Formats: sequence, C-alpha cells, structure tokens
Amino acid sequence: MHQFIDGEWVTEYEATDEDGSFDRQPTSFRDSIDPGAAEPGRYHLYVSYACPWAHRTLITRKLLGLEDVISVDVVDPYRAEGGWQFTPEKEGCTADSINGFDYLREAYIEADPEYTGRVTVPVLWDTEAGTIVNNESREVMRILTTAFADLGNGVDLAPPERRGEIDDALDRIYEPINNGVYRTGFADTQSAYDEAVAELFEALDYWDGVLEEQRYLVGDRLTEADIAMYTTLVRFDEVYHTHFMCNHKLIREYDHLWPYLRDLYTTPGFGETTHIDHINEHYYTTHPDVSPKRIVPMGPDPDFGAPHDRDELPGEPPV
Amino acid sequence: MHQFIDGEWVTEYEATDEDGSFDRQPTSFRDSIDPGAAEPGRYHLYVSYACPWAHRTLITRKLLGLEDVISVDVVDPYRAEGGWQFTPEKEGCTADSINGFDYLREAYIEADPEYTGRVTVPVLWDTEAGTIVNNESREVMRILTTAFADLGNGVDLAPPERRGEIDDALDRIYEPINNGVYRTGFADTQSAYDEAVAELFEALDYWDGVLEEQRYLVGDRLTEADIAMYTTLVRFDEVYHTHFMCNHKLIREYDHLWPYLRDLYTTPGFGETTHIDHINEHYYTTHPDVSPKRIVPMGPDPDFGAPHDRDELPGEPPV
Repeated sequence: MHQFIDGEWVTEYEATDEDGSFDRQPTSFRDSIDPGAAEPGRYHLYVSYACPWAHRTLITRKLLGLEDVISVDVVDPYRAEGGWQFTPEKEGCTADSINGFDYLREAYIEADPEYTGRVTVPVLWDTEAGTIVNNESREVMRILTTAFADLGNGVDLAPPERRGEIDDALDRIYEPINNGVYRTGFADTQSAYDEAVAELFEALDYWDGVLEEQRYLVGDRLTEADIAMYTTLVRFDEVYHTHFMCNHKLIREYDHLWPYLRDLYTTPGFGETTHIDHINEHYYTTHPDVSPKRIVPMGPDPDFGAPHDRDELPGEPPV
Repeated sequence: MHQFIDGEWVTEYEATDEDGSFDRQPTSFRDSIDPGAAEPGRYHLYVSYACPWAHRTLITRKLLGLEDVISVDVVDPYRAEGGWQFTPEKEGCTADSINGFDYLREAYIEADPEYTGRVTVPVLWDTEAGTIVNNESREVMRILTTAFADLGNGVDLAPPERRGEIDDALDRIYEPINNGVYRTGFADTQSAYDEAVAELFEALDYWDGVLEEQRYLVGDRLTEADIAMYTTLVRFDEVYHTHFMCNHKLIREYDHLWPYLRDLYTTPGFGETTHIDHINEHYYTTHPDVSPKRIVPMGPDPDFGAPHDRDELPGEPPV
C-alpha cells in the first residue's frame, strides 16, 4: 500500500535502521537507452532545482548541449504531504508539460501501477513509451553522456579510456560525501551521527589534498565525477553545515576544495543551474524532524567569482 | 501557579510574542550589596557552565581573585522537565553545597514562596539571609566589581571614571548580540528571524571595525564589557552558528573579532572557565523545538592558542 511517512509518499519505507543510521532506499527504475534509440524530443527530465541528485542531470544536459534535445520540468522545492508537486505559479517552477500531472507520484504510478517506493528526482521519462527510463542520477548522467553523445555538442564527460577512473571517483565520493551529508543530518542516534560526520570530513580532507595537485577529480579533465562532487559542495556551506549539522568546517575554509568549487561554479553549466533559493527553501522547510521551525536562515554570501587560479593546473573546461 | 512550559518551570510565560519574536522575561531579583556588607564566605553563586549569562559571573570572580570569597555550585548542563538540576555524579557538576537542593527552583521558592518567573542562572545567593540577592548577570558582575572590590586582588573591571563608556558598551552589545543570538534562534516566524539575524551581523561587523583600532571594547582596558562580549563570542561558532542558525558568518572569519576572542580566551580567567562540553550538551539537547534530535554535532576545532598579536595595541590584561 502507498502511504505518507514523514511527509513523504512512500511504502513500507523506514528512513533509518535500528542503529539510527540513515538508509537510502535504492532507486527502482534502472533501464538504459540504446545509442540508436536516443532521439531529440523523445526524452524528458523531471527535476527539482533543490535536489543534488537531480542537479547532476541538469549540469550534464547543459555541458553536453542537450537543451533542445531533452526537455525539463521543475517541481516545487517545498515537498509537502503529497510529495514533489508541480506548482507553475511559483518562481522557477513549471507545470508538467508532458503529462499534465499535479504530483510527480502520478508519473511513478503511470510507469508502474504497483509502485511502492520513494518518489524521487531526477526522473528520465520516455514520452514515446510513456514510462520512466531511469531515476538513478548516476545512471541518468551516464545515459546522457553515452546514448545522447551524437545529439549534442560533442563534449565527452566520460571518455571510455577514463571511465574506470571516473567510476572509481564516483564510487569513492558517494557514500562519505554525496550520501554522507544525508547520513549525518538524518542520523537518529549520536553514534550514527558521529560515524557519518567523521567519514564525511575525512573524505573532504582527502579530496582537498588530491585537488592541490590537479584541477579535476580524475586529473586534467572535467568529468561526471566533478558534477557529482559539485552538487554536494555547492549546497554545503548554505545548507549541510547548518541544517544537517556538518559543522566541523565550511567548504570555503578548505584550501583547494573552495577554489575548485569556484572554478566549477564559473564554468558554463554549473552556476547557471544552481538555484540557491530553491535549495534553501527545500531543505529548511521540508524536514521538520531536523528544522522544525521551517525558517530559512540568512546563510553565507559566498563570492563564487573570486579568482581561483585553478587554470594554472593542467586541464580545460569542456566548453 | 507554577507550571512547566517548553520543558521549563515557568509561570504565565510566553517565550515569543504575537509576531514570533523572542521575548526574554526580565529577571526578578535585583537587590544589591552595600560595600560594607560584602564579606568572605557569605555569598554564593549558582551557575551553569553552559549559560553565557552565568559565565560572565565566573570570569568576573576569577579576574577579581574572589575564588576564596565567593563559593560556586554548578548545575547539570541538560535542563530537563524540572529545570536546572544538581547532579553531582556528572562531570563538572556539583551538589548544592549550601542548601542541599536537588533543583535550582527550590532556591527561588526559598527566596520567594510566591515566585512565578523563570528559574535562571546565575543566582547570587546570600547564605546569611537565606535568599537570592540578584539573578541579573550584568548586575551581579557590577556587584562583584564594586561591593567586593576590597576583598579581591585589586583588579578593577569597571573603574568609576570609565563606567559611562562601559555601561554604554554593555547596553549596545546586549540587544543585538548577547540577546540577539537567542532572538535569532528562538524566532518563531521568518520575519522575526530575519530582523534579529540582520541586527546581529550588523552589530558584529560594527564591533569588528572598532576592534581593528583598539584591544578592548572601551579602548585600552579590559572591562566588564569584554566579559559580556566574550561569553557570546566563545559560543558562537560552536553553537549559535548551527543551532540558532546565525549562519551568515563564523566568528573565526572576522579579521578582528577572532583575534580578540583568542586574546581573551588566553587571558587568565576566560579559557579556564569555558567548558565547551557543557555548552554543547546544554544547547543541542535542551531545545527540542530547535534541534529535535538532541544530537550534539562535531563542531569546529578552534585554535584559541594561535598568535593574535593583539598585544601590539595599547592595553594590558588585568592580571
């Protein structure tokens, strides 16, 4: 049966395990697209500007020049009882231009009438088959990078000869960093928090060291791994440090992560897809078990445009 | 009637007004001590190491060399249903060595059986009269500075010729900074938050500028005003930035407030009375309407011992 749990439309889903640690439920739609099948106008993305997972796909779409190939709809950053919702009257949000749904859950039920999992973004939707292709952000990135390679500007964010390194970096940052901020913030026990936050900052320290010597996560080339790192880092000082109590250090206090973040922010495709207002509204108003007053704090005023000197390291932005 | 409201033993007390702004209830015991009446062993302080208002009196007592003149008991940093409690089995806490009470509220009822206000620290207790002299931290500081002047080491934290400046500084930092962090964190509406947080950072910016040119708040002399500023600043990066969402900027990011804080921390009487463990436990576990998970975050690891070069400005520590 479908139910609402913690203000989310889910079924038989416990957000934390018996030890109080956050368990992210696996995504459910894991199909791919054959390179021959990708065609302009057929595929669509449902995203939230607030969500770091969805944000990955927006950046990838921009970097690959797929704006005219894949359309996008944007849900309301506030996720209320009914889950992600289309509220076109709200700044930055859209209607569902494909199906006319009011709630994203309707797309999940359309794709699978028996669906009982979490309703999450991003969703890569096949308008011809009328179903969800994939809702796992890492796989959607890879589908865009590979199946849509011939439909964009020729940029390659996961060249075959580097794919081992890229997948390795994506693997290594996922659990401690991308998911780590959630494991820290949603921990229900002190020990679960302590473990998650220690792993998070150990990993941040590690990558700060890596980025001293190289411009991007796999070296001299901007790849999917940098996109995955970016969408967490750009939310960190604004949201994760306060709301998720990742308060050991700010990204802007890191010697290399902070210039790296500014380098990416000012690379076309990154800053322009970063909507801090949606990010703030989502986190601070959607998790009353973390921030019950639903007040959006002042936040920092980061100078993403400050010189970063990262271009002295080998490697160029892709576009 | 006495009641428990928001886990605090209070009466007819609303913590926020109709606009959602935090209203600090005035303290109730406002007596003084004649200089002739101050005598060693007669007066006692009830404090919490967690509380910035109580902390003021601990620093003042140390700076004035009154450790053998005024005794101290320390309550549990966790304030549960019954209000501040004596839990001698806990690290850093004591029994009530004067009255043997289990809860601080008993001292308030002993002093005034009709008492209906908040039960707060610090309390300056008269063991001879068996009553509360004063529970307003600023007045307790001044009582120690003046009435006890002849019983200590001769240090003067509020010399008569500077008292106008000192009172002016105390006035000016109280509402936006000392109380401002509470007004920010306890605001129940976005507009009340926005107003409080803007005033807070405007005031911090102002004093950061003042401290560029002078070592202490009133110039070349450490006074009560610095004590009042210190007890807020030393809690800021650890607690107020995260828990009270004062997250525009960290104190350690300020050019002059941060060296000023380190200067004070390393001045005898300041760092030694600063118990970060009590501070963290109190705030993060006692306010479920702000931090419902009661998890104590990792927090920063400030280097209070880093060189501050503040001694190049005119003025010397008092002891």
